[in-house]
Amino acid sequence: MSDYFETLIKPRFSETDMRGHISNTVVPVWLSEGRGSLCREHLGITQPWMVVNLNVNYHQELLWGAQVTVKTAVERIGNSSICFAQEIWQNERCCVKASTTIAALDMETRRPIPVSQDDRKRLAPYMLESK
Amino acid sequence: MSDYFETLIKPRFSETDMRGHISNTVVPVWLSEGRGSLCREHLGITQPWMVVNLNVNYHQELLWGAQVTVKTAVERIGNSSICFAQEIWQNERCCVKASTTIAALDMETRRPIPVSQDDRKRLAPYMLESK
Amino acid sequence: MSDYFETLIKPRFSETDMRGHISNTVVPVWLSEGRGSLCREHLGITQPWMVVNLNVNYHQELLWGAQVTVKTAVERIGNSSICFAQEIWQNERCCVKASTTIAALDMETRRPIPVSQDDRKRLAPYMLESK
Amino acid sequence: MSDYFETLIKPRFSETDMRGHISNTVVPVWLSEGRGSLCREHLGITQPWMVVNLNVNYHQELLWGAQVTVKTAVERIGNSSICFAQEIWQNERCCVKASTTIAALDMETRRPIPVSQDDRKRLAPYMLESK
Repeated sequence: MSDYFETLIKPRFSETDMRGHISNTVVPVWLSEGRGSLCREHLGITQPWMVVNLNVNYHQELLWGAQVTVKTAVERIGNSSICFAQEIWQNERCCVKASTTIAALDMETRRPIPVSQDDRKRLAPYMLESK
Repeated sequence: MSDYFETLIKPRFSETDMRGHISNTVVPVWLSEGRGSLCREHLGITQPWMVVNLNVNYHQELLWGAQVTVKTAVERIGNSSICFAQEIWQNERCCVKASTTIAALDMETRRPIPVSQDDRKRLAPYMLESK
Repeated sequence: MSDYFETLIKPRFSETDMRGHISNTVVPVWLSEGRGSLCREHLGITQPWMVVNLNVNYHQELLWGAQVTVKTAVERIGNSSICFAQEIWQNERCCVKASTTIAALDMETRRPIPVSQDDRKRLAPYMLESK
Repeated sequence: MSDYFETLIKPRFSETDMRGHISNTVVPVWLSEGRGSLCREHLGITQPWMVVNLNVNYHQELLWGAQVTVKTAVERIGNSSICFAQEIWQNERCCVKASTTIAALDMETRRPIPVSQDDRKRLAPYMLESK
C-alpha cells in the first residue's frame, strides 16, 4: 500500500452532527482535500479538474477527537479522465473507501480536454499496482 | 417519473467555489435534504439511518442564482437497507444523478437492524417501477 | 417591526452538531442568505459587497426540525458601507440578533466604493425607524 | 504578543466562493477550531461551552493556497463567561480580528454555570496583558 499519498486532517467540531459522529456529507470534502493535497501541492499540477463521479463506501463511523489520514492513489487514467482510489483511516481502522473520477477541464469552454502527458508522468508513481 | 418526490432547494452563495459554480461537495448535502424531506417530513419516518454508500454522477454544472429540484425515489429495499435514486434538476436540465444506500440503525448498539414493515409500507408509493 | 424583510430557511440535518443543536458556525450562513434574499433577489441589487464586520448575539439555541425566519433590515447607510440589523426567529422566539456591516466593492481594484444613489433608494423602505 | 496560542489551518478549496476568496462564513469555523485547539487539546478543558457573542472584523481578504495561523488568547474571564481575542494571519498579514464570548454550560439544564477555578487556572497563561 506504499502507492498511497497520505494527508492528515483534523476533524472539526462543526463537522459533527446530532447523531454524535462526523456527518456523511463531510467525507467528500476530506476526499477533495486529499486529492488536492497530492495533485496540486505535492505534484504541482495546475490543470483545473471537474468531478464527474464520486462513489463512497462508509464502513465505520468517523468520530471527532482523533486525526484522520486520507490515502490517495490513482486507479486509472483515461483519455480525459482520471480515477482516484481513496481511503480514510482513523484509529487504525479503514472507515471509508472511495473512488472519484475527474475530467480535465478547459476553463474557457467548460469542456473536457485530454489529460496532458506531463500530468500523466507526475501521477505515475501513485498508480495502484494491477491487482 | 411521477414516483419521484420533489424538494426545492435554493443554492446558497457560500455553496459556490472559486470555479464559479456550486462545489461538488455541496451535492451530498442537498441529496441528504431530499431524502430527509421525503422520509422524515413527508412520510413521518423516525427510524435513524446511516449512509453506507453514496454514488453521485455529475452531468452538468450547478449554478448559483436558480432554484434546484431534488427528486427522490426508492430503488430497492433490502433486509436492513434501502437504496434511494435521486436526481438534481436546475433550469430544466438534469445535472446530477445519484444513488444512496442507507442502513436502518439501532442507536444503542450502532448496528444495522431490519427495515420495519411500517417503513416499507410508507415508502412503497415511491418505489421506481421496474424498468 | 414591519421594516424587516423575512426569509424562511429550513435547518439542514448536516447543520446540527454533536451538542444536538444547530452549530453556531451555521448562523453566519443563514444571515448571509437573509441579506442576499433581500438585496439581490427582492431589490435586484447587483453591486458586489464584502463583509467588514459581523456581530452576532446568540440568545437561544436553534434546533433542527422547525423552520426559521431570518428578518433583515437596514440600520445605517454610510458613504461606502451599509449596516444591516438581523434577527433569527424559531418557534416564535428570537434566537439570534446580529448586525453586519458590508462595503460596496470594486471587483477590479478590490477597494471600497461609494454606495450608489440607486442602491440607497432601493434599501430605504427597509431602514429601521429611529428608536 | 507571546500570549497567543497558534493553530495552523489549511484553507480548503470548498471554502472559497465565486468571489474568488475564502467565504466570510468560513471564518467563524476557523475561529472555533482555534479556540478548541487551545482549550480542549492543549489545555485539556472538557467543560462544554456555548457561544453567546461573536464579533468579527474582516480586514483583508483571505485566499486559498496559503496556510493561515489562528492566534487565540483570553481577553477576560467573568463569572460564567469567557471572552477570547483571536486573530487570523495569512502571508504575514493580519486579515481578521475577532472576539468571542462563550458561557460555561450545564448540559442537563442547558443553563450557564460558573467557570471553574481549575479552568481559570489553565487559561491564565493566555490572558492578554492589560493594555
